[in-house]
Amino acid sequence: MPDLDLTSYLRESRELVVQEITSFLPRDPRSRAILYDLMLDYPLRSAKALRPALCIATCRALGGHLESVLRSAAVLELYHNAFLIHDDVEDGSEHRRDAPTLHRRYGVAIAVNVGDAMLALTLEPLLDNMRTIGMGKALRILRAVARMARESAEGQAIELDWIRHGLWTLRDADYVRMVYKKTSWYTFITPTIIGAVIAHADEARLVVLRKFASLLGVAFQMQDDILNLTAERAYGKEIGGDLWEGKHTVLLLHMMRSATAAERERARAILRKRRPDTRDPGGHAALGDGALRELVAELHARGDMTRAAADAITRHIAVSPRSDVKTPEDVAFLVALMERYGSVAYATEIAQRWARKARAVLEAARPWLEDSVHRAFMEQLVDFVVERGY
Amino acid sequence: MPDLDLTSYLRESRELVVQEITSFLPRDPRSRAILYDLMLDYPLRSAKALRPALCIATCRALGGHLESVLRSAAVLELYHNAFLIHDDVEDGSEHRRDAPTLHRRYGVAIAVNVGDAMLALTLEPLLDNMRTIGMGKALRILRAVARMARESAEGQAIELDWIRHGLWTLRDADYVRMVYKKTSWYTFITPTIIGAVIAHADEARLVVLRKFASLLGVAFQMQDDILNLTAERAYGKEIGGDLWEGKHTVLLLHMMRSATAAERERARAILRKRRPDTRDPGGHAALGDGALRELVAELHARGDMTRAAADAITRHIAVSPRSDVKTPEDVAFLVALMERYGSVAYATEIAQRWARKARAVLEAARPWLEDSVHRAFMEQLVDFVVERGY
Repeated sequence: MPDLDLTSYLRESRELVVQEITSFLPRDPRSRAILYDLMLDYPLRSAKALRPALCIATCRALGGHLESVLRSAAVLELYHNAFLIHDDVEDGSEHRRDAPTLHRRYGVAIAVNVGDAMLALTLEPLLDNMRTIGMGKALRILRAVARMARESAEGQAIELDWIRHGLWTLRDADYVRMVYKKTSWYTFITPTIIGAVIAHADEARLVVLRKFASLLGVAFQMQDDILNLTAERAYGKEIGGDLWEGKHTVLLLHMMRSATAAERERARAILRKRRPDTRDPGGHAALGDGALRELVAELHARGDMTRAAADAITRHIAVSPRSDVKTPEDVAFLVALMERYGSVAYATEIAQRWARKARAVLEAARPWLEDSVHRAFMEQLVDFVVERGY
Repeated sequence: MPDLDLTSYLRESRELVVQEITSFLPRDPRSRAILYDLMLDYPLRSAKALRPALCIATCRALGGHLESVLRSAAVLELYHNAFLIHDDVEDGSEHRRDAPTLHRRYGVAIAVNVGDAMLALTLEPLLDNMRTIGMGKALRILRAVARMARESAEGQAIELDWIRHGLWTLRDADYVRMVYKKTSWYTFITPTIIGAVIAHADEARLVVLRKFASLLGVAFQMQDDILNLTAERAYGKEIGGDLWEGKHTVLLLHMMRSATAAERERARAILRKRRPDTRDPGGHAALGDGALRELVAELHARGDMTRAAADAITRHIAVSPRSDVKTPEDVAFLVALMERYGSVAYATEIAQRWARKARAVLEAARPWLEDSVHRAFMEQLVDFVVERGY
């Protein structure tokens, strides 16, 4: 296997891609400062940029050229950053990649509009592909992007439906189907397929590469689930955020299957609760009700209010309407159950199993996917996916 | 001019379009109930559906066939409904077309995902166009949709930037440039151009039709501005909502130019304030703080609190942190200034002027745009745009 430093490969791809995005954004000076410069905010922040690197590596490992794949790889990154902006708004996130989220910098309306505009701007460069790589390939790439968007929306819809109906006793097979749609298509299958189509891979090879990417995507999501619970705070992600959000991680599903009926019942009651939120109606503590608290203290000091009354109001502000919102104790209870039943070890083991399957598929493709730094990147990506700490 | 009932034309177009949308939505039974059925929620509610009707009418007025234009017209309607879902989330709206908004029915996360999926689903039918109307036309339509998305995002960005920087002393020409991008491209130019491209109109005719649509779009937005202030509550829109949101209407800009320096200063201070919002940190009244109010009343009744203390807390809950939020008095002040300076009459007059220009362009096109019910629809649309009460 040729010498390769995965981190350098990622960094070099990312630099090319950011340059490419900059080159195809409209330059109209009147719209630049209020729209197009804002589109570069997230892409310019430090990030792994896995998707474009995988797209470029697949294409080049199959003998395709960087010039033919760069624009499509850049579109994938632009698309992804648009979704990050919208996700951050939806989740009310404060930080992204060690800096304030776009909506914290410019307000929600501007952030949503910038995200919409980025999604819209993915179409023109993909149409321009026709001139550079030909009609047939350009159309297949457009179809692939449309499919990616549809699959990930369906995956997202499955999980949101589970959350809405409080479904928690699910099999790993249910999880895998959801994650295949939500993560594999978006992060692995589409970048791989686009790279392969540009390199003119035939149908049989596409099938193999798609298999590789599907397996890798599932392993990646499982590792993401694990890291969410165990990793040091990195890339602005919050530890245990999945539990607060009530996400269906492979760890949580394992724990729910392993727990006693009584534990499961309590866990289910916790998971039904909402996540506390700064926009939360009634979340007084978060809503800066220090002023009300001070007023109460002052009225009590002045003798206008008994201690009992002051306490009653303070208690009301602090907790009263919050019985439907998760507490730190709730989340700690879930974590303790996961520890008791070894859910992290379980998830680690099956993530490794999916990664091994991905590795085997890549190995079997050796007759037509020869050694190169690009193939080496794909191999090391498999290790990285399940060994990474961020 | 052939006999035509505008309302029936709109209704018939809308029925065909809704049927067409239903026909191209994926039918996968596992995703239907959780995703695809939700996409039909807004389109199935009563609406004017102007955009697809204009697209169909332009195509047919030029001799094109319904079968060739229907799919593209349906995509425009799907696209528009996706944006309505996202707008409703962003504005925290409660009602849309006389029913609860999608996020009130299913929660914000599901609503955002459904909107994203609808936007993504516009791509495949537009690619399918290649088989039915040919490669050349299908590509021009894709470019037109990409351009529409870009222009409206730029228009939106201009207005959001004005709001962010508190710019209120603007000329009508600034307003027209913003509205041309935000409204004309989205609601009139793109539907018209797509209809014309499908009917094989040459470049010279496209230029004329684009001019017609641009003028009509400006007139439409001006009438929208007027109706927002004057109309009976219709289609779930809130009276004076533009003032609460601080939108740059042609009425407001006229008033700001006409007002005295002192009035302008006070208006500017009001417009800088935010709109009250149910998600508003500190907007206690809206946040269901009836419970806290009851607790205070009870403590006072029990003698645990003086009347002065109870009043102080009640006052705090009602108003205290709200000095940066508009009040009904603020909005009434703006309305009174508009009345004093005749801003509605001014806006009505110039909306009529833009409509007259649109009518003249259509009249001059008579040599190649002959009498038909479809041309009659376009003519009556001009009247409707400036005479409608909803």
